[in-house]
Amino acid sequence: MSDTLTTIVHTVHDLRQHAPLVQCITNQVVPQITANALLAAGASPAMVDTPEEAADFAAIASGLLVNTGSPTAAQYSAMREAVRGATAARTPWVLDPVACGGPAARTEFSRDIVAHRPAAVRANASEVIALADSAQGRGGRGVDSTDEVDAALQAAQSLTERTGSVVAVSGPQDLVVSVGRVSWLASGDPMMQRVIGTGCSLGALTAAYLGAARTGSENVTDHDAVLTAHAHVGAAGTLAAKDLVGNRRGPGSFAVAWLDALATVAEDPSVIAELVSVTETVTETDEETAG
Amino acid sequence: MSDTLTTIVHTVHDLRQHAPLVQCITNQVVPQITANALLAAGASPAMVDTPEEAADFAAIASGLLVNTGSPTAAQYSAMREAVRGATAARTPWVLDPVACGGPAARTEFSRDIVAHRPAAVRANASEVIALADSAQGRGGRGVDSTDEVDAALQAAQSLTERTGSVVAVSGPQDLVVSVGRVSWLASGDPMMQRVIGTGCSLGALTAAYLGAARTGSENVTDHDAVLTAHAHVGAAGTLAAKDLVGNRRGPGSFAVAWLDALATVAEDPSVIAELVSVTETVTETDEETAG
Amino acid sequence: MSDTLTTIVHTVHDLRQHAPLVQCITNQVVPQITANALLAAGASPAMVDTPEEAADFAAIASGLLVNTGSPTAAQYSAMREAVRGATAARTPWVLDPVACGGPAARTEFSRDIVAHRPAAVRANASEVIALADSAQGRGGRGVDSTDEVDAALQAAQSLTERTGSVVAVSGPQDLVVSVGRVSWLASGDPMMQRVIGTGCSLGALTAAYLGAARTGSENVTDHDAVLTAHAHVGAAGTLAAKDLVGNRRGPGSFAVAWLDALATVAEDPSVIAELVSVTETVTETDEETAG
Repeated sequence: MSDTLTTIVHTVHDLRQHAPLVQCITNQVVPQITANALLAAGASPAMVDTPEEAADFAAIASGLLVNTGSPTAAQYSAMREAVRGATAARTPWVLDPVACGGPAARTEFSRDIVAHRPAAVRANASEVIALADSAQGRGGRGVDSTDEVDAALQAAQSLTERTGSVVAVSGPQDLVVSVGRVSWLASGDPMMQRVIGTGCSLGALTAAYLGAARTGSENVTDHDAVLTAHAHVGAAGTLAAKDLVGNRRGPGSFAVAWLDALATVAEDPSVIAELVSVTETVTETDEETAG
Repeated sequence: MSDTLTTIVHTVHDLRQHAPLVQCITNQVVPQITANALLAAGASPAMVDTPEEAADFAAIASGLLVNTGSPTAAQYSAMREAVRGATAARTPWVLDPVACGGPAARTEFSRDIVAHRPAAVRANASEVIALADSAQGRGGRGVDSTDEVDAALQAAQSLTERTGSVVAVSGPQDLVVSVGRVSWLASGDPMMQRVIGTGCSLGALTAAYLGAARTGSENVTDHDAVLTAHAHVGAAGTLAAKDLVGNRRGPGSFAVAWLDALATVAEDPSVIAELVSVTETVTETDEETAG
Repeated sequence: MSDTLTTIVHTVHDLRQHAPLVQCITNQVVPQITANALLAAGASPAMVDTPEEAADFAAIASGLLVNTGSPTAAQYSAMREAVRGATAARTPWVLDPVACGGPAARTEFSRDIVAHRPAAVRANASEVIALADSAQGRGGRGVDSTDEVDAALQAAQSLTERTGSVVAVSGPQDLVVSVGRVSWLASGDPMMQRVIGTGCSLGALTAAYLGAARTGSENVTDHDAVLTAHAHVGAAGTLAAKDLVGNRRGPGSFAVAWLDALATVAEDPSVIAELVSVTETVTETDEETAG
């Protein structure tokens, strides 16, 4: 097992010990699967997303997810409040800039909030490119839905250099980028695209792993934590696909099996080593600051 | 196989080719199952339902669902905006007038918005009767929850004549009415009534099929598209009920099997011919304008 | 079978006959599982939660759930309206004071609304203690998340004496308290804690059972109704855990099996006698007023 896989396995194990409390400000479609995914992995969900409660709760939460998929006026306000509370209390937070590059107000919000330096950004390729464009001062350009993950590498590196955030790009292979370190993760199953909320849940688990890493005594970097969240979710996808039998191979059964597999991986993290593979490039000079 | 069944099978096949983007403004209970049903069938869900984003998105969506089950002030505003955007861009939209005939403001809203001529109305018998009453200028009357689907035939015909909408009435047998054409569809399973959101998901799939039909080069009428949505959903219900075994025959297992079956039907539409039956009355003179 | 178990079995049977209409004002995470749990048990869900519709609907509903887990300004307003409508129409209502003892505004709201005398309060130990503190005029104190159910007994008794509400405390053993009667219920499975919404659904089923009991001609007390809701939900949990096989023993499969089991118990209530046990203390003098 590579050093990185060993770290991932240990980090999954630690999550259950720390049982981080994860505040989620997310969209209307996915709260149930997000909460269930956090519970299955060993974390505690708390969908505290009103402007009145968001900041105070972010100060006591282990981690925070800000997902822009349901951008009501109240949600925007709650997101800003939560980021304020998280920043003051040094609670790590994750930005999932849903549809950044699409509706103008949503793109603008994501570009504005990312300046507050989330611990991580988790998105698809198009969203990362649209988000990075602002950081580079280039303004919005049309985003092609055919952007591939590797096309997002440059954008991710630009974004991580500017904000210090770990940037994760979901795709056929996931890409995790921080200053001086680039990880490619092969895992998961195409069925994950056919179940709503697997990506949004990954954002929440990223916040959970960041929260656990900051709490733990172990030397787990933010990059390790983000990579582990992706490995956990992807390994569960691979495992779930293997578990389907007979007539019950569709997305309904897959969604159920994926939640089961999140728990299986949490209970026996060593299975990850057989279910995912990681390729990394580390720039020696910058490695010290990668966490 | 009858001509109608042949058309249905071809139309299901086409949906996956077109992968229509379906904007849903729906209630708080069903976004997850609605999104999963669209994905299982081969469409793409987008729950864009803020007043700020609704109109612009309706202009680029393939189809739009307006479901009145969660009538916050912001939702009402978003529904009006979305209908405005859809009308300007000729995006077909579906009205699901949940609880029309119940709360006064909700009934009034449905009666007002239907004047903007949705491509289709999908509802149960009581709702269609309550909705048609307004179109006839009779004002609201008490709606009996025992209204049967066939009692709604006259109301549906009145509504379709006034608005040009295809009107679909869900029940033990589904009824689809357009000017000059009446279709009765036998399909589904009583278990569908015990899973929340199967009806609301049908509304979303109706928007998906209308969107795909308008996009496609094939000569699929709106009536065909609406009928196909009902056949797809009903066939999946029949298939799901057959798939349940042992101790796992309850509504939890049925909901999972139904999502699986939506995908199975999408992948092999020919199974529909064995799972549904259609009886139709076509008035020759009006047939030309039925679409 | 003890008298209490006999009453429980009969009360479960009656629910399906009455099919109570249950209005739920609940949080954003659990509407789907709550609606499905009500349907599985034989009740009808209605998530009517706007300030405009809440009071009128509470007057026609069989029962009402007020769950403070999603406290937007509109939700607070809808809860107050619904309680007003329910009180005027003598519709029994249930308070689930989610996170009472946590965020200040939420605690204050729960303490204020409980003065309107819900038929029942359903909560965990910490929430009941935080809620009772106000009733005793002691003001808020820090709530320890390690509060055990039996530590809540005194708080529950204080609360029930002050408000007349049946007070139910969820935990490894559930506690149901009314004036002169204390019931301990052993049932359920630890997996229930790993599926979001089982507790919130229990609140909704409590409202369903209260509604059915008030409608029925049988002499079922509110205490009986609340106890039966807990027995139904707990028995389903035990049954669901037994049903899991092979690789599919995780929380995803459990959630599905639990919904199945809610229906199984509803269809054959006699199974409850093998799945739960009840221990009771009745103070003779007060027994007459326990309902």
